[in-house]
Amino acid sequence: MKIDGSITNITFLGLGLIGGSIALALRKKGFRGNLLGYGRSREALEQALSRALVDEITLDINYALENADLVIIAAPALASENLLRQVLFKIDLSNGPIITDVASAKGNLLKVAIEVCGQFPPRLVLGHPLAGSEKSGNGAAREDLFEGRRVVLTPLSSNDKSSVEIIATIWNSLGAEVVEMGVSEHDQILAATSHLPHILAYTLVNVLAKRSKGKNIFDYAAGGFRDFTRIAGSDPTMWRDIAMANREEILKSMDDFRLDLDLISAAIEQNDSQSLLDIFSKAKIVRDSFAEV
Amino acid sequence: MKIDGSITNITFLGLGLIGGSIALALRKKGFRGNLLGYGRSREALEQALSRALVDEITLDINYALENADLVIIAAPALASENLLRQVLFKIDLSNGPIITDVASAKGNLLKVAIEVCGQFPPRLVLGHPLAGSEKSGNGAAREDLFEGRRVVLTPLSSNDKSSVEIIATIWNSLGAEVVEMGVSEHDQILAATSHLPHILAYTLVNVLAKRSKGKNIFDYAAGGFRDFTRIAGSDPTMWRDIAMANREEILKSMDDFRLDLDLISAAIEQNDSQSLLDIFSKAKIVRDSFAEV
Repeated sequence: MKIDGSITNITFLGLGLIGGSIALALRKKGFRGNLLGYGRSREALEQALSRALVDEITLDINYALENADLVIIAAPALASENLLRQVLFKIDLSNGPIITDVASAKGNLLKVAIEVCGQFPPRLVLGHPLAGSEKSGNGAAREDLFEGRRVVLTPLSSNDKSSVEIIATIWNSLGAEVVEMGVSEHDQILAATSHLPHILAYTLVNVLAKRSKGKNIFDYAAGGFRDFTRIAGSDPTMWRDIAMANREEILKSMDDFRLDLDLISAAIEQNDSQSLLDIFSKAKIVRDSFAEV
Repeated sequence: MKIDGSITNITFLGLGLIGGSIALALRKKGFRGNLLGYGRSREALEQALSRALVDEITLDINYALENADLVIIAAPALASENLLRQVLFKIDLSNGPIITDVASAKGNLLKVAIEVCGQFPPRLVLGHPLAGSEKSGNGAAREDLFEGRRVVLTPLSSNDKSSVEIIATIWNSLGAEVVEMGVSEHDQILAATSHLPHILAYTLVNVLAKRSKGKNIFDYAAGGFRDFTRIAGSDPTMWRDIAMANREEILKSMDDFRLDLDLISAAIEQNDSQSLLDIFSKAKIVRDSFAEV
């Protein structure tokens, strides 16, 4: 594995599905340094150790940061805010470790970093692998989770170039394609493509559950529904955190969605079958061209 | 195949995915009578004949009905209304063929039947197989489309019992499980479990398409999104028809959905993380228990 020679000790702050999968993939790709896992649940950490995801575990964040060359914050979105705040208080910002993360929202972390440091710390490289699962926890970790997936990095102009390169190199070595974009562009795109769909799926399941008095309405749900609501099996705490972490962009997406939904209601109410056909046809054309990619 | 001996000639009014699949399955299960396909597109009918879905095709509805013992209306929801109206005008209501259909909405057909006949015709058995695909047309027909799927029949108390039994026997013989329920219960359940999800999927794709100026936003959509929007690849005409045919129940479902979506927006706006967690957790529990079925 071609990582800058300076990276020997990697610390994971949080070691669930994503952190655990990075650890497994690093080993598979030949990384020979030390992997250390920090978390708040002794049980989860011990499970990770027994599965040999990492070499070492600790409940002490000071110990976790002490010798780290690279700190990977791999926690849910709000926990990532708290962890980033702690890390930025504790480390040497100019010569300390490179820091990166994997959270689904970037704007809130940017804000925390500037609050704590006054300006954006050059060795903090915000990132987000577009990979996941409705499963969670390090028991679900897979060494191939990032193969062929996109990872978005959102470097700022004030970022240290070599830190960004090292993080990109690591992701590439795990089989991922690295794409760079701005923090707010990332948060807008993720709100629309991921956060909104999860909220819609949770909502749909709740609407059905309310109607399901007596008869089990889910017995009559066909295959499309099953696919549609699979993501409603995702971890509620993680998605609560994402909803809070990317609140502004999510609220905008929800507003956009409501406007388009209202157009359909209006067309149905007014028996405006041409508008309905136009709306559905437009979506089918887009979806079909997306499916071909 | 154990069908009442009186059924020799079966006529399909409409021969797309569902009609074609019934025809294929009937043959596979050993039905030896005559299968006749009526439609409006000569090309589609000729394709069906060349694939041996049916024995005979016609563009003349009078000829199609002339010797039929069973008429299966297998057309999109609004076309089914028109076909049912024509059939009820043309046939002998007491000694003519048994009539059934496969449309996703039943209330509109009940209304048409009563408009035309003054009362519900005893040999009309409204039905709906909960099977389908985002593909359409008889080229997509499959002999196993109904294996293990539910078929809802919505007989009325004034229905001729033996007609209902014959239709149920046919569906059972094609591998389907037959469930009976009321017309409005069917339409409510389908609005929530099928029609609403399709509308949500079309809407989501359109919201994304609008945001996709310049950069292809779909490149950043992960697996969950792909599943979620698969049904937006469904035939727009068919879904336009369904939206019109089951308009009242669909509008109610959309209202319910909006209310639940508004609860989430409000919780995000108010930083009410406990309510968000409750809403998402409730949905996950329901979805997980549904997934286990």
